[in-house]
Amino acid sequence: MKNEDVKVTPYEVKGILTEQEYARLAKEFGIQPISQEILARMKKHTKELHFMLTRNIFFAQRDMAWLLDEYEKGNKFFLYTGRGPSGKTHIGHLLTWVFAKWLQDKFDCELWFQLTDDEKFMFRPNLSLEEVQKFTQDNILDVIALGFDPKKTHILIDTKHSGIMYPEAIKVAKKITFSTTKAVFGFTNETNIGSIFFTSMQAVPCFLPSVLKKKNIPCLIPLGIDQDPHFRIARDVLPKLGYYKPAIIHNKFMSGLKVFGGKMSTSDPDSTIWTTDTPEQVKAKIMKHAFSGGQGSIEEHRKLGGNPDVDVAYQWLYYFFEPDDKKIKKIHDDYKSGKLLTGELKSYLVEKINAFLKEHQKKREAAKKQVEKFIYKQ
Amino acid sequence: MKNEDVKVTPYEVKGILTEQEYARLAKEFGIQPISQEILARMKKHTKELHFMLTRNIFFAQRDMAWLLDEYEKGNKFFLYTGRGPSGKTHIGHLLTWVFAKWLQDKFDCELWFQLTDDEKFMFRPNLSLEEVQKFTQDNILDVIALGFDPKKTHILIDTKHSGIMYPEAIKVAKKITFSTTKAVFGFTNETNIGSIFFTSMQAVPCFLPSVLKKKNIPCLIPLGIDQDPHFRIARDVLPKLGYYKPAIIHNKFMSGLKVFGGKMSTSDPDSTIWTTDTPEQVKAKIMKHAFSGGQGSIEEHRKLGGNPDVDVAYQWLYYFFEPDDKKIKKIHDDYKSGKLLTGELKSYLVEKINAFLKEHQKKREAAKKQVEKFIYKQ
Repeated sequence: MKNEDVKVTPYEVKGILTEQEYARLAKEFGIQPISQEILARMKKHTKELHFMLTRNIFFAQRDMAWLLDEYEKGNKFFLYTGRGPSGKTHIGHLLTWVFAKWLQDKFDCELWFQLTDDEKFMFRPNLSLEEVQKFTQDNILDVIALGFDPKKTHILIDTKHSGIMYPEAIKVAKKITFSTTKAVFGFTNETNIGSIFFTSMQAVPCFLPSVLKKKNIPCLIPLGIDQDPHFRIARDVLPKLGYYKPAIIHNKFMSGLKVFGGKMSTSDPDSTIWTTDTPEQVKAKIMKHAFSGGQGSIEEHRKLGGNPDVDVAYQWLYYFFEPDDKKIKKIHDDYKSGKLLTGELKSYLVEKINAFLKEHQKKREAAKKQVEKFIYKQ
Repeated sequence: MKNEDVKVTPYEVKGILTEQEYARLAKEFGIQPISQEILARMKKHTKELHFMLTRNIFFAQRDMAWLLDEYEKGNKFFLYTGRGPSGKTHIGHLLTWVFAKWLQDKFDCELWFQLTDDEKFMFRPNLSLEEVQKFTQDNILDVIALGFDPKKTHILIDTKHSGIMYPEAIKVAKKITFSTTKAVFGFTNETNIGSIFFTSMQAVPCFLPSVLKKKNIPCLIPLGIDQDPHFRIARDVLPKLGYYKPAIIHNKFMSGLKVFGGKMSTSDPDSTIWTTDTPEQVKAKIMKHAFSGGQGSIEEHRKLGGNPDVDVAYQWLYYFFEPDDKKIKKIHDDYKSGKLLTGELKSYLVEKINAFLKEHQKKREAAKKQVEKFIYKQ
């Protein structure tokens, strides 16, 4: 696949996202790498660094230096992230949220979590609002299961909270032309007018806490890089309304199972693991579909070794399931040398996923009774 | 001014609106005249006909025959009209509302009255949301002053009621492309995305009562013809959502003071009378600015007579201030014959306006205590 086949917008992610492609995207989007200096400044406050930072999974940022300046002046920030509820939650969604949870713990800050049910309804021709709202309720359980602090976490659902969000969204919308959304999202004359308007709703949580508390509060958005275009626009508009530009920290995508570097797709259940999958489903999917960087036969593998750089099982451990740096290095080296076989690597991943999901599913069940505590009270 | 200089959309009314132009517009918009048959059917229920019907001020309609069919089957309709609160209320605005009040009384029906503060904020570059909301509160007093039944009248303010309106608006928005809004409203790539979205919000009151009461209720919209384009779109979309197309009854504009057939302009205080004008202001404006169909001198006028068809003072009496058919005929004939002088005609109008405003301003003052009764409770 050639470079020009790679496309990353909130509404289309296609192509194989290699390290080179992420570097090219960062340049195209005008976002900066996370420098050693920024990491050192973060560490001063967090004591340790999350492995998603040291492993460069969160790999780019906007205005993190400014955010830390403000923090050090005593001007605390809040976090904002979210989910477009077009289906069940998969492992790839959790990555950003797990990191957001770490930020909440370390910086002791509020999280505003947006569920863009309006977006998914308007962008998906065949999705009804009822279906999207069912996914919304389902996705919320996964957010809560991760252990966010209910006192500091506020869930916004666009349709449910439109009474406070729409009056703010129109202030943003007034400053954005159709031309801009054409250029940024690739809209055409045939795009529906709700989809065209929507980016204004996604901008609102960047400054809603400032509106509600009647003071300007810095905002940090951990997000998958595909969401950056929304905030490129929001960052242009917000200063015109008297608010700070939100700072952003971007993660790479966890690879889909079938093709290394492909995105997980909610429309292809075999490309990912859902948070509700059973141990048997997990095992079957990983064994059958996870793209392997190993050799065709055990003999060859022992002789030539595997390639962890394109092996999805290894990458899933690296991105999410094996936080231990020593262990991941050993796995890497053993796989590369041929000591660790593909089947063994996959079995290890299956164990890790199932251990995680066992716990997650228990918390997810318990979350059903906690939902109301997390929904923002208007 | 040539025909092609006449333009009527919700966002631009220009040119001189003669009877010919109204006929051309009706054809262009695809709306029907109000036939004698429809008038007779209405009269069966209302006993008498409002002079705005017999004088062809309400001059066109969509689906009135269907609406009456439904009414006669016991399927009562509700009324929907509204106001874009971009300034103070003038006499021209009242025309539609006075007729709506008559419909409410005669057909004993609910009125949903929408104040599109979001619209005016987004469409007017220099208007702040605070200013629009001030006009909103001001305009509401004029609505209430007209005597609508508080038990049957529900005021919707788009930002205030966005909690119930936005979730419905997105269902409409999903069915409308940018192409459609370009063609209907003349939008360009430089139009802001809030303005592009807005027509979805204006569609909502057509079916919101049906949503709230969980049954399909017919809707009749009395409106100035410039608002028809919104509902041309809404009438396409609503059946796709399972709702009736709203019926519509269209009024011509009351002429602005300065040029016969020109629109009253909120940006030119001398082109109209505000509901808050003093008797002195009324007198000064009418005497100075009301375009006269009379002759240059008393002698000439006595000899040649005046032309009531282009005389704004006469037209204001005909459209609003002289409901008595016998009196208006005498004024017409006397003016045409030269018996009634321009100064006398204007003085009569001034008296009529000031009598109306004296009463209106008293009720407007009393309305300040009634606002809450009229605002729809969510």
